[in-house]
This record gives sequence, C-alpha cells and structure tokens, in this order.
Amino acid sequence: MHNPNLKPQTPNLKSTEDTICAPATAPGGALGIIRVSGPEALAIVGSVCHSVKATTPANTVHYTHITAPVPDASPSGSPAPVPDASPSGPATPVLIDEVLVSTFRSPHSYTGEDCVEISCHGSPYIINKILEILIQQGCRMARPGEFSMRAFLNGKMDLSQAEAVADLIASTNRATHQIALSQLRGHFSGELSQLRQQLLELTSLLELELDFSDHEDLEFADRTQLLQLAQHIDERITTLAATFETGQAIKAGIPVAIVGKTNVGKSTLLNRLLHDDRAIVSDIHGTTRDTIEDVINIQGVAFRFIDTAGIRQTSDAIEQIGIDRTYQAICRARIVLWLLDEEPTAEEQKEIESRCQGKSLIIVSNKSDKGISVAESSIVIPHSSLLSISAKHGQGIEALETAIYSAANLPDLKESDIIVTSARHHEALVRAHDDLLRVLDALAHQLPSDLVAEDLHLVLSDLAQITGEAQIITSQETLNHIFRHHCVGK
Amino acid sequence: MHNPNLKPQTPNLKSTEDTICAPATAPGGALGIIRVSGPEALAIVGSVCHSVKATTPANTVHYTHITAPVPDASPSGSPAPVPDASPSGPATPVLIDEVLVSTFRSPHSYTGEDCVEISCHGSPYIINKILEILIQQGCRMARPGEFSMRAFLNGKMDLSQAEAVADLIASTNRATHQIALSQLRGHFSGELSQLRQQLLELTSLLELELDFSDHEDLEFADRTQLLQLAQHIDERITTLAATFETGQAIKAGIPVAIVGKTNVGKSTLLNRLLHDDRAIVSDIHGTTRDTIEDVINIQGVAFRFIDTAGIRQTSDAIEQIGIDRTYQAICRARIVLWLLDEEPTAEEQKEIESRCQGKSLIIVSNKSDKGISVAESSIVIPHSSLLSISAKHGQGIEALETAIYSAANLPDLKESDIIVTSARHHEALVRAHDDLLRVLDALAHQLPSDLVAEDLHLVLSDLAQITGEAQIITSQETLNHIFRHHCVGK
Repeated sequence: MHNPNLKPQTPNLKSTEDTICAPATAPGGALGIIRVSGPEALAIVGSVCHSVKATTPANTVHYTHITAPVPDASPSGSPAPVPDASPSGPATPVLIDEVLVSTFRSPHSYTGEDCVEISCHGSPYIINKILEILIQQGCRMARPGEFSMRAFLNGKMDLSQAEAVADLIASTNRATHQIALSQLRGHFSGELSQLRQQLLELTSLLELELDFSDHEDLEFADRTQLLQLAQHIDERITTLAATFETGQAIKAGIPVAIVGKTNVGKSTLLNRLLHDDRAIVSDIHGTTRDTIEDVINIQGVAFRFIDTAGIRQTSDAIEQIGIDRTYQAICRARIVLWLLDEEPTAEEQKEIESRCQGKSLIIVSNKSDKGISVAESSIVIPHSSLLSISAKHGQGIEALETAIYSAANLPDLKESDIIVTSARHHEALVRAHDDLLRVLDALAHQLPSDLVAEDLHLVLSDLAQITGEAQIITSQETLNHIFRHHCVGK
Repeated sequence: MHNPNLKPQTPNLKSTEDTICAPATAPGGALGIIRVSGPEALAIVGSVCHSVKATTPANTVHYTHITAPVPDASPSGSPAPVPDASPSGPATPVLIDEVLVSTFRSPHSYTGEDCVEISCHGSPYIINKILEILIQQGCRMARPGEFSMRAFLNGKMDLSQAEAVADLIASTNRATHQIALSQLRGHFSGELSQLRQQLLELTSLLELELDFSDHEDLEFADRTQLLQLAQHIDERITTLAATFETGQAIKAGIPVAIVGKTNVGKSTLLNRLLHDDRAIVSDIHGTTRDTIEDVINIQGVAFRFIDTAGIRQTSDAIEQIGIDRTYQAICRARIVLWLLDEEPTAEEQKEIESRCQGKSLIIVSNKSDKGISVAESSIVIPHSSLLSISAKHGQGIEALETAIYSAANLPDLKESDIIVTSARHHEALVRAHDDLLRVLDALAHQLPSDLVAEDLHLVLSDLAQITGEAQIITSQETLNHIFRHHCVGK
C-alpha cells in the first residue's frame, strides 16, 4: 500500500479546479477527520458512500458507510501487484468504515469551495484506506497548507490571516493563542488597511498636484500637512515593527537567565518553577514533558529558563569557559534572575550591572528557610525587584513568578492587540519604513511630487505583501514558502 | 491550568444523567474534535457559542465562535489563584476559537444521547481551554471508553460490538481491520443470537417435560434429538473458540522464526522483507518505523519476524545460550523459515524436524545470485515449500511472501468472517463448552430434566456475558475493565 498517489503533488495557482483530500487530525486518536475540497468533493465522496450525493444540502451531517469498490485493489494505472488484496476474494465492495460525513458548499466553507469532512474511526489503516479510495475516485493528495492556500486564493482570508492559522494550531499558551487569534480575526489586516488608506490619500494628493504640474502656481497639497501625515504613518509602521521583538520572544518563550554561584540553589529553583507550572495539556493527552523542558508557563506566557554555570573571577581555563557561557546566556536573556544566598560584594554587583545593561534584573535572595535574607540596603545597582524566597520549601515562588511576568514588560495581550510574530511581516514593515524615510526626506526637501509618489507606491507594495493583495503577489515560490509550514489538512 | 476537573471521574451505571466531554482526536493535528454527550449537551455548548441552542435541529453543522465567559478564570469552586489570567484584563468574554459545531439528537447519535461534536483548531491549548469551559458550564470529563459505554447502556450496541470499536481504532492492517469491523457490524453477535435461540429451544423442550413430570408416561422431548441439537450447538461453540488462536496471532502479528547458520543472510532477508513492505501509513502521517520494527505486512496481514542466532551443535556455553534462544523462538513461532546456502546434512534436517512439530516449515535456499540452489531431492523432512531466493538482489521475495501467507493457513478474512480475538470472549466460550459437556453427559445418561435445564441456563449465561445482556451484566467492575482499554473520546 505504499502508494505514490498518496504523496502530495505540487499545485499551481490555477489548480483549484481539482479536488484535494488530506487527513486533518494526528494519528492515534479515537476519531480521524479527512478533508476533501474542490468542485467534485460531494460527487467523489458520494461515489463511495450511500447517503451523500452531489445534491446533498450544505451544513448537514450524515451517518453512512465508506466502501471500497474492489477489495484492496491498487489504484488504476499502477502496474504494481496488489500486495494487500484478499488472496481469493471476488471483486465485491469491501466495507471500510462507518463514518459521519459533513457537507459544505461554496462559498460558505473554509476554502470557499465545496467541501466534505469525513469523520471516521482513528485507525491509521482506515484513514489511509479512505484516502486511497478518494484518490482512486479522482481526488489528489493535498500539500501541507493547501486548504488554507485555497482559502487565500478564493478570497476567504488574506495572507497574514492564513499564516495565523498555522500559528493558532501551534499555539501552546494564552499569549501565543491570543496573538494568533488576533491576527486570524484580521486585527493586523485591519490596521494595515487603515495605513493603506492613509498612504493612498497621500499619494492621490501628490498625484493630483502632478497632473496639474503645468499650472506652476497650483499647489494642492500642503507640504507640511503631507509631511505630518507621512510621519504619522511611519510612526505607526515603526511601532508595529517594534512589536516583533516581543512577538518573537513570546513565540519562542521569553528568555530568562538564572545566574548565581554554585550551590546557591539554581537547579532547585528551576525544578520548583517547573513543578509549580500548570501543565498546559491534561494528562490524558499523553503530551510528553520533554518538549517543554525548562519552558515555564507564567500567567499564560512561556518563559524559557537558561540555567548557567556560576560566576566568579577565575584563572582556571575550563571554569572560564563555563563563565563565558554564562555571560552569553545573559546576552540572550531579556530577564536576568540573580540568585544569592549572601550579600553580594561591590565587585560582584558591578560585574552583574555591566552585563545586564538593557535587561530586567531580578535579585532573588534564596534560603529564607535558613534565615538568610539579603537586605535591600546592600544592593547598590539598579534592579527591577528584590525578593526573598525558599526554593526548597516553595516560599515566595508566587511573588517571584509575578515579578518575572512584570519584568517581561509585556503588553496586555488582549485579542485586539497587534503583535508581529512573523519574520516575513517584520521584513516588510522594515522595508516600508525605509521607503517611507525617503518619502519624508523628499517631502522635507521639496523634491518633485513624481519622485515622492514613486516611493509611496513602494511603501504600498511593501505593506500589500503582508496581506498578499492579488496585484502584488505573483510569485508561486512565495506562496509555497508560506504554506509549506502549515499542517497537512489545513 | 492543571485542572483537577479535567481528570475523568468514575461514572456509575446510572450516571448517564450527566453530560460528559472529551477530546476525540490525538494532539498535533490541524483539527481537534471535542465530543459532548448527555442531556445538557446542546444547552451547555449553546451557552458558550452563539449559533447553537437547545432547540438547534439534529444533524446540522454550524460555524461559530467559542468564548470563555471570564478571561482564563479558574473554574468555580477552585480556591487556587488564577495562574493563567490576564493580569489586568476586565471580565469580558475572551474568544477561544472559531469552530464548527455538529449536533446529534437522542436516540440518533453514537451514544444514543444528545451529542455535540466541536471541531476546533488542533492546538492542545485550545482543546484544553474548550474542555475547561465546558466543565465550567456543567460538563464532566469522560473516562476512556465512556462514550462507548453509554452507547452500550443505551442499547445502541452490545458489549462485543463496543469492544470492537476499540479494536477497530487500533487496527493497523487489512486483517485486524476486517475482524474488528465484522464484530462491530454484529456478525459475532448474530451468531451468538442464533446459538441462544437454539439453546432456548432446547431448554423450553426440557422445561415443558419438567412441567408435566407428574405424567410419567409423557416424554415431550425426544432425547436423541435433544442430544443432537446440543452436540450441534457445542460444535459451533468449539469452532468459535478455536478461532481464538488465529485471532490472537493476527492481532499480535503471526510469529515467524527465521533460523539458519551465521552469514546465511538472515538479516539481509529481514531487511529485504521490511524494505518491500508497503508502509501502512503514508509518509505525511509521520508514523515512526520503530513501533512496527520487524513486523511485516504481507497481503494485509501482520507477520512478526523473530530473528535468531545460528543453529549448530556446540560445546561453547555462551553459544549454547544463543541456540537455546533460537529453539525458544521456534517454539513461539507458527511458521519456521529455514534459510540455507548449502544442502543441509541429515542430522541438521532431523534436528529441525524435531523442533518444528505442528508448525509450517518453509525451506529457503538463499544466494541464487551466486548460483546456489538447494535441490528438492536433498530435503528428506516434511516441509510446506522450498524456494530459491536472493535476499541481496530481491529475487524470489514475492514468491516467498506468498508462501509465508499460505503457510499461515488463515481463513479468507472477509468482513462476514467471525474470528474471536478477545480473551474475555474466548473464556466465555470455553466456559460455555464446559457447561455444555455436562448437558451432553446428562442427556446421554438420561439424567433428570431439571438438572439438564440448570446447566443449560449456565450455558446461556456464559454466552450472554459476551454481548452483555442486561439480566446478566450486573458488575460495574466488569464494565469498567472492558471500557478502560478504549480511547479517550470513544
């Protein structure tokens, strides 16, 4: 049954005339979902199960059976022997599964095409068999993300929304979930649309001036007003681009370096934080802990903890390597958690201060159970907070989590917030900003309107690439690149 | 978010009054399905999404949004702090996902109760969040198999069919799939129902006799005829019980031992068979090879290959351990594949013959590419077949696979075949057979009808335990035991 037809084929932009199928669920569950989309979706599914016909109404669910036309036959056109065939069976229909079939009709479906979802028993054998049968009946195996690509091509969502689908599926905590959902719901697209309107206003004012350029006395657009408008647009673009750092950190987990001397309790603290962490997935999911090792969920945001070697001046070469690594860890961190079990010397404080420029420093006095408490008065360097905890007994851990969350200095993370998480979007925003700088420069230096208008068109084009407006996106490679990171079946 | 409410609670037989929920798909897919079943299913789902109401018609699909009443609040009754809450968010509804909701109404649903299936994005965070919200609104987390248990309790399927659901989901090849589907479709139940009819006929004839026992001259039932009927029933029960060995082998993979001297090409042959094996799951599923290592799918049936050390007489103690293991492997095997690259001596043949009593022996002459071919005339012991192959170049492998399949001596494996795969069913059949033997004995020895009737009732009870007829099944432990092996969400 290793079937070359089950391999996805490269679609082209105009290939929405064929009907595609793919599993939309991971193997191993009680149920499996197979998605079918395209003009023949209902007819093809109808050809292998009774209750569904090309005329079946939309948005209805049907209990039915899927049958294979010929027992385990290899698909037509394949010259290979039939390895899975019943050795002596006659060519009677073979029942594959009892299924639920849901129907959707263009344009009211995810892809905008006629769609069918088949809910079968979750056996990989059954899912594979049904896919094989659908392909025999004329379906093509979908590529990862091809359903979302079709939704984009059919105008059901713009590119940034289609990208958000993949982020939403991959989301593991409140923060990544809210950001992806905001983008899917079109908040980012809406913001870009507003910017586009303002840019078009600016362009049309300039172009109006251009059309009447023979009339030297006429100046329709007040250059100062134009400059202000352009500055306002640039401000908004710069603000959006600046959210990328936070977006990236939230997506990968906000990096926190734990530093401190050996035996000060760094590992105990890490274990304590991991232990207190509320598991994202309930036990029954069987999610392995491995993948989220040292990533701790605090108030719905992932923090990535980087445990480090101790810090002190040393002449030992090998120890120095460990210390260098510690400094590298601090470099990568957004928050530094300095764990102490005695008052630090002035030198130690200076060293930490010099390494923690531009970062949030949380000073943590450990071993409160042993009566240790570093006095606020003994700390001379700037710091976000000083807390007393017992990593061993769990005292002060909740306050520490709150301090870590505050130190991350995150926005509210409401669904309406716009935070850029895609490098592609960030690049486009940075390009738009660069092109706008030339516009600002040209306006400030009273350069001719046609030069300014040209740069403004570049800015429009930069922003349009984020949402993938039809006139801008022509490259199939770009689309393939964007959608190949999607799940199969989405 | 580690929520004790997300842990399934032990239901009792009368607990179908509450509404249960569970994920029905494995984590990691594009889509996730959450199942809700019980009298409040529609009302509870309706309380967290617009388009669904308690009055929504059955078998319809609705595109809608799931919203959490209060942002990330912990469920009511929990005194714990709210770790995942927005630190400053007001208590406005938080959008969780855009979903499709399918509705089913009692009795036309899987469980026989009102049911709802929520199809959401496959993020574990989202699935967990929706479950949390459903529980806040009054659902209870379902135990593994609880949906199927309810289907059984509501008379939608008998016990053996409910057990087949778990087997169907676990099926990985044509054979296990067909056996499970046959059982789910009620072929086994139908056969048992026929036996039950015949047993009841026998019993009623005997009891009629009993009722008129004062009339000494009356003998309503012809004892010879009764004996024949009982023998016929016992034959059928014995035949069914005998299928268990095959059923077990098919379920676990039919054991094949590969024996032969070192360097005869055992590993090459195994790799060749594995390589030629048609993968059950297409690449995109990401199924790991590890789990089916050395299990090879031949004509839709799993064969479990046991590679062994070489066989020869030796005085070396350590080598002897390897050889002992080889003999143990042969013991466990149903088929022995003896790989040769020269004609075996008479002693070697005798040794193999003595070890392979009751097993199918396939003699394979390897290295045909080097001109080696063991002559049929040189083999003096009984064997299923003698084949010439080149494991290295793949010559003769297809014929070998056919020979292995034939040697397994399997039934046709059509959907209508009945093959017992459950130890519970096998035990019940063996008990029924034992009780019937006493009936046969009593009939043969003209024992009083009331004694015979008592034993017949035992046989009826034995068989009824397989399908779980209401008057027989009273033990909740039995039910819990059966359904705990089910998937969550089924």
